[in-house]
Amino acid sequence: MDEIGAVAVVGCGTVGASWAALFLAHGIDVSAWDPATGFADRLQASVDLARAQLAELGLTGAGRLCTHADLEAALAGVGFVQENAPEDEGLKRGLLARIDASLPADILIASSTSAMLRSRIVADCRRPERVLVAHPFNPPHLVPLVEIVAGGETAAERAAAIYARLGRRPVILRREMPGHIANRLASALYREAVNLVAEGVASVADIDAALCNGPGLRWSAMGPHMTYHLGGGAGGIRHYLDHLGPSQELRWASLGTPRLTDTVKAAIVAGVEAEAAGRTVAELEARRDRALIEVLKARTEVAGR
Amino acid sequence: MDEIGAVAVVGCGTVGASWAALFLAHGIDVSAWDPATGFADRLQASVDLARAQLAELGLTGAGRLCTHADLEAALAGVGFVQENAPEDEGLKRGLLARIDASLPADILIASSTSAMLRSRIVADCRRPERVLVAHPFNPPHLVPLVEIVAGGETAAERAAAIYARLGRRPVILRREMPGHIANRLASALYREAVNLVAEGVASVADIDAALCNGPGLRWSAMGPHMTYHLGGGAGGIRHYLDHLGPSQELRWASLGTPRLTDTVKAAIVAGVEAEAAGRTVAELEARRDRALIEVLKARTEVAGR
Repeated sequence: MDEIGAVAVVGCGTVGASWAALFLAHGIDVSAWDPATGFADRLQASVDLARAQLAELGLTGAGRLCTHADLEAALAGVGFVQENAPEDEGLKRGLLARIDASLPADILIASSTSAMLRSRIVADCRRPERVLVAHPFNPPHLVPLVEIVAGGETAAERAAAIYARLGRRPVILRREMPGHIANRLASALYREAVNLVAEGVASVADIDAALCNGPGLRWSAMGPHMTYHLGGGAGGIRHYLDHLGPSQELRWASLGTPRLTDTVKAAIVAGVEAEAAGRTVAELEARRDRALIEVLKARTEVAGR
Repeated sequence: MDEIGAVAVVGCGTVGASWAALFLAHGIDVSAWDPATGFADRLQASVDLARAQLAELGLTGAGRLCTHADLEAALAGVGFVQENAPEDEGLKRGLLARIDASLPADILIASSTSAMLRSRIVADCRRPERVLVAHPFNPPHLVPLVEIVAGGETAAERAAAIYARLGRRPVILRREMPGHIANRLASALYREAVNLVAEGVASVADIDAALCNGPGLRWSAMGPHMTYHLGGGAGGIRHYLDHLGPSQELRWASLGTPRLTDTVKAAIVAGVEAEAAGRTVAELEARRDRALIEVLKARTEVAGR
């Protein structure tokens, strides 16, 4: 088990600030770097907000936050790195190579990248085997998923153990895939959600409501494979696939392949504006976070029984 | 506003029993019919179980349950019908026509059908305009979504008002679509979940975990369109679609189109068995229901703030 000591958070936008808050709330010191001038104040403000939310979940650790104007200074003495630079392949490649060059060989370097393949962004590292993807879901301090793509089993399992101790649910990919797992699932669902708007089947607000009062609600408790296992009754997934597999394949063939034309985009924008009903993005975010916190508390309740 | 008085529950399998429990817990009398001999005892047992769960949500109404061996006797004097027969088009057509023939013209008749189109199953009704689809999600007494497909706006809105008073979230389809909304979204997501198994990207258990600790968790709070609205930052969905729409379209093009071959089915079955880890379907159902009840309680908490 790695004793990570302090963690370097490299890149302190929304995702980096959220990670920093999570480490701090678990009593881990954070050494933060970002190229933007004046980032320290913005980071502190975001961390304070996220820490107030984490305190509601009982996470009140006393990690200390230090900010640095120099990357190498931020890396000195840390036992783990979480990189959250913008999604620019060249930038990430260079940054990871620089981090790799300044750290002892046994320290893991994790990238939060959502859109990039690990094999591409580690290309300039001298020790790529300790550089991995650890992709969180927004907002990372609340949503437990961390998708891990590593160069080998050892690094994957060392990283998974670190995230598990932070109350995360690490998921290890056996091979890299654009969009990892969760964003591919989300994208597949969104294609049909857009199709239903394009086909005029229901309003944007009703399509959203159908998901979060139906399958979305259920998927907060149980994944899709297990859901169909229950759908198969006493015979489980085997019965489901034998009897309803053909209907699934027919349904798949009937799904839409919409394009985001100007007309479709305009319909989505108008529909989302109607659904938002004047609430700002910040207000909607606060509402989402409130809902996530209550669901996470509910999970603790379920686990405690 | 319709005063529905007593409700006839026609077809008393899992879905019918769940509906019956929901009506009863809201203080509405239920008149139940099923062609199976001895259905009354099984129904009572299922209703008792569901009512115990509803009581945890504060729903303890004193509706009375009567069972009937004769359909027309069950329909006498009711103000609303919820039909839950097996998914057999001929059977449903005949049954709905028989219900339609025995009830006054202003009484709504709702079918729980998941797989059938309204236009087909009302074909033999003399007053099809009062016959509609009202599709719930399993288990209907806990999951709020009801998808409504009606022959016109009046019937759709009358039915929506009835379900809203039962604490449901009715969603009105502007036109019928195989699988309605939610099962199409679920099916689109499942296609990619199967693809990830077929491609060996991760275990079944990890794919399930990725959903319910990531986007599934978030979708219990907010639908996909609104999620991307937040993903667009201060610029919202318009900014998201303009800047990341092209990446969505690229991702859509990269999604898999798996087939449920014997090999793929075997991999899913083995993966689900590993995930179930010896727990029976009944045990997994109880765990899902416990999780749903806690999330629903959490929602009340959020709404109360």
